Amino acid sequence: MLVLREVFSGIRRFEDMRERTGIPRQVLTNRLARLVDAGVLRRVPYQEPGSRAREEYKLTPKGFDLYPVLVALREWGDRYLADPEGPPLETVHRDCDAHVRTRLVCDAGHEVRSARDVIPRPGPSARRRDRIRV
Amino acid sequence: MLVLREVFSGIRRFEDMRERTGIPRQVLTNRLARLVDAGVLRRVPYQEPGSRAREEYKLTPKGFDLYPVLVALREWGDRYLADPEGPPLETVHRDCDAHVRTRLVCDAGHEVRSARDVIPRPGPSARRRDRIRV
Repeated sequence: MLVLREVFSGIRRFEDMRERTGIPRQVLTNRLARLVDAGVLRRVPYQEPGSRAREEYKLTPKGFDLYPVLVALREWGDRYLADPEGPPLETVHRDCDAHVRTRLVCDAGHEVRSARDVIPRPGPSARRRDRIRV
Repeated sequence: MLVLREVFSGIRRFEDMRERTGIPRQVLTNRLARLVDAGVLRRVPYQEPGSRAREEYKLTPKGFDLYPVLVALREWGDRYLADPEGPPLETVHRDCDAHVRTRLVCDAGHEVRSARDVIPRPGPSARRRDRIRV
């Protein structure tokens, strides 16, 4: 998640991620490899003048679709873990500069205000004892 | 996340979680302790007739507020990892039986369709080099 947050912030290069996150080199290498294996990130070659060819990391469509998870997690973090002075990062809508957040809705168009208003039930591929495989 | 998913599904007892998730006993013990330490779960004593007193796990308000993260993650999983026959679990709105999902919106009331329409910018507590602390 820490790595994905960086990529969504436009940080694509190994050294930049390492500096910003403080994740040790080998750990970051492994995490990036796992995200590539999972089809969430892809490696794209780049070369700066005078340097050897390197690779940077970009989100695949599957990776892009994780964005609501990150927004929801950041909202929670801002609420419970942030500085009293406010959150460290804000995300705003490109068109209107208003803050972006997640909302729970149902297909009938209602806003869902609490987890207590939601009922889980087994779906089409539920297994014995409702065991969920993710 | 696996543990939280169980608790949100109404599974509160250690043995039930262990059976449903397949998480080894010691690992599950540690994860639950971390969630309690983080203020996401709380221990509540219960006693069944003829058994010794035990504890079950309930969500705190801080834990409840993680619900949108889980919904967003499940939506992503349903899209990319689920069986062709459909998702293993559905969540429906108590009032109307329609499916529940997350949506990205901005405070001006617009629906945000893609991460590309969102601009990150440093917030009030941003540190040097926009480093984000979570």
